[in-house]
Amino acid sequence: MQLYSFFNSSTSYRVRIALALKGLTFDTIPVNIRAGEHRTDAYVDDVNPSAAVPAIVDGGVALGQSIAIIDYLDAKYPEPRLVPQDLEARARVLELSMLISCDIHPVNNLRVLKYLQGTLGLTPEQKDAWYRHWIDEGMAGVERLLAKHGHGSWCFGDAPTLADICLVPQITNAQRMGCDMSAYPRAMAVLALAKTHPAFLAAAPNRQPDYTA
Amino acid sequence: MQLYSFFNSSTSYRVRIALALKGLTFDTIPVNIRAGEHRTDAYVDDVNPSAAVPAIVDGGVALGQSIAIIDYLDAKYPEPRLVPQDLEARARVLELSMLISCDIHPVNNLRVLKYLQGTLGLTPEQKDAWYRHWIDEGMAGVERLLAKHGHGSWCFGDAPTLADICLVPQITNAQRMGCDMSAYPRAMAVLALAKTHPAFLAAAPNRQPDYTA
Repeated sequence: MQLYSFFNSSTSYRVRIALALKGLTFDTIPVNIRAGEHRTDAYVDDVNPSAAVPAIVDGGVALGQSIAIIDYLDAKYPEPRLVPQDLEARARVLELSMLISCDIHPVNNLRVLKYLQGTLGLTPEQKDAWYRHWIDEGMAGVERLLAKHGHGSWCFGDAPTLADICLVPQITNAQRMGCDMSAYPRAMAVLALAKTHPAFLAAAPNRQPDYTA
Repeated sequence: MQLYSFFNSSTSYRVRIALALKGLTFDTIPVNIRAGEHRTDAYVDDVNPSAAVPAIVDGGVALGQSIAIIDYLDAKYPEPRLVPQDLEARARVLELSMLISCDIHPVNNLRVLKYLQGTLGLTPEQKDAWYRHWIDEGMAGVERLLAKHGHGSWCFGDAPTLADICLVPQITNAQRMGCDMSAYPRAMAVLALAKTHPAFLAAAPNRQPDYTA
């Protein structure tokens, strides 16, 4: 299997965690999204028509979108399960995962920040305030969901799920951008646990072949 | 079952389509997000800790996030299936659904447009250019995915799936904002079909109890 990945991409990081949790071997093919490599004809035509990272190529299947990839991996390589099969447990994991994937991450990713600073000419202070605003909005919801439904040492139970896979890269990204995360103790406890877990460590940005400081 | 919904919310619209396709009966409880009703303590505490629409209450289960809700409905009320069970068919449906739910919709929803115009003071022209930019970026990917993997009269096959459920509200929203969608003929063919389908019609914003022109 090949993983097309950028070291600092939160969505690539999600897939790297999933692959590591499942113990799957894969080749990382770095795609420098800062340099626009995800927009080349070869990449869009052959790997990912939506012109983004991550993507996997697994035999004849080329697939983009981190959540779709992890769902695919979970069906094809079900040990350990990352999305529970029990109806309500599954719903809770997906609810938190979608809150992060749909409500927090997209408004703060590289292409949006580039548009704000480039096309709209926002100051660094305005851009940072934008970033913090959506982190605070979204993480308040994450923390309330964890307070209401969370249990065990991870978000939902004593093994990591898709919820943790979405949460850890999001917090890592927020910390890199200088956000104060002290208002989210339940989420931060998950991050602390992830920092002791081999799969989360192996998937971290600074362990990737394309990492630059 | 209760559905907490705002007539013009694309994500509420998705869940309304899913409920209608499955022939489930439910009570619509309007939540006026323009007036901030999704942020009241009662709503956040009792219905949706992430302070957003849509949410459902199904017996003892209160659940937010449209994709999580539709996955839940698909497991509990599996006829007709909205997310295929076949590995690759499922991956294609989720890939397109996530492209819309994660890469297009979030950057153009009400709260983001409010921030752009309110906090950042963008002109209506700048806001419209922002909206069109992300529609064009995202819909180009949608159209390429449909060209590569689409088949049948809907996005993927001869029955609607989650992909169509995500696509139709997104196009409807873009048309409401005045976007030219002629560059996306495959997507527009799905919209034309949806306009003849009773479940899509029943779920449309102008059929909702809280609709205002």
